[in-house]
Amino acid sequence: MKLYGYYRSSTSYRLRIALELKGIAFENIPVNLLQSEQKGAAYTSRNPFGSVPMLEADGRDRAQSMALIEWLDEAHPERPLLPADLEDRYTARELAYAIATELHAPLNLPVLKYLKNPLGHSQDEIDTWYRHWLARTLGPVEQRLAQLGTGDFLFDRPGFFEVVLLPQVYNARRFSFDFGDKPHIERIEAACLALPEFQRAHPDNQPDNPERSQ
Amino acid sequence: MKLYGYYRSSTSYRLRIALELKGIAFENIPVNLLQSEQKGAAYTSRNPFGSVPMLEADGRDRAQSMALIEWLDEAHPERPLLPADLEDRYTARELAYAIATELHAPLNLPVLKYLKNPLGHSQDEIDTWYRHWLARTLGPVEQRLAQLGTGDFLFDRPGFFEVVLLPQVYNARRFSFDFGDKPHIERIEAACLALPEFQRAHPDNQPDNPERSQ
Repeated sequence: MKLYGYYRSSTSYRLRIALELKGIAFENIPVNLLQSEQKGAAYTSRNPFGSVPMLEADGRDRAQSMALIEWLDEAHPERPLLPADLEDRYTARELAYAIATELHAPLNLPVLKYLKNPLGHSQDEIDTWYRHWLARTLGPVEQRLAQLGTGDFLFDRPGFFEVVLLPQVYNARRFSFDFGDKPHIERIEAACLALPEFQRAHPDNQPDNPERSQ
Repeated sequence: MKLYGYYRSSTSYRLRIALELKGIAFENIPVNLLQSEQKGAAYTSRNPFGSVPMLEADGRDRAQSMALIEWLDEAHPERPLLPADLEDRYTARELAYAIATELHAPLNLPVLKYLKNPLGHSQDEIDTWYRHWLARTLGPVEQRLAQLGTGDFLFDRPGFFEVVLLPQVYNARRFSFDFGDKPHIERIEAACLALPEFQRAHPDNQPDNPERSQ
């Protein structure tokens, strides 16, 4: 498999974690978003969404990270990301899709760029916007985790939810979001970051990260 | 089952279509978003996201429309929304999740309200924002449909993709979005709206629609 992605893209990061957790080998192909490589004809002819990640596998180019993760789990059922139990599957998806559908888009680069130009907002206003939507979704996620009595992971090992949570928490930390009242999320973050799968998938350790420690 | 929703909420509309297509009887319980009923303690104690839709079924309150639709299809496998074939499942999810993850949130009421206050944008600027994001995702969706040679529906009958597409198209028409260069989307819209399941689910035919034709 070939994963076209960008080290700091949270959706690319999701896929890296998913592939690592499933133990699927992949070739990492950086796409330079800052140079709009994903908008070039060579790329959009394969992925009309002009987005990362794109996964080339079994002769098909697939876009859209959540559809990809659902596909990965169906096409490669070993080391499942979703639990087997129907109720648990719902629980994992509720929390993951809260982040993927409510939170991701307003914080994504195209929206942040639009706020700057044409809407003319300052970086301060954009930072406030960013933290506003983080609080609005991560607050209820924390509440649900508390209701469920969650420990180090949502279930006995990291899976579907953690694949989506960790990249969002990484982004939130870049914007100095305060996790002081979110002990469940912080505990899950720490437990995940201690695992080699999450370390290999981390933006800090990607070849296209210019600040990568050698 | 009890569906808590709002006639014009696109995620509530998704669930109504899904339940209708699956032939599952449900009680429709209106939640008045304009009066912020979904933010009251009685509601948020059941659904911390403070959002519609919420589905009460099998003694559990479920939130998050995409997680709900995936759950419905697993818990009630008759009349499946997702096709059986692995590749077709991916195709349906790619298109549905493009709309649910990229497009829905920037057009959702909380974001539009924030653009107005505190950001101070005019209705004209908000309408331009709205159509900008519609074009950005529905353009590639149309391209994919053209690549796939889609007819009246993505597959032989409406399912997962149409459940997500139709509410977004309904919203787009309210904002006078031009579908002139999107014949595949328009054809699917027309084919769906001709079906009684989509007619019963339509915002025009909900009891909480103040303009409902008697």
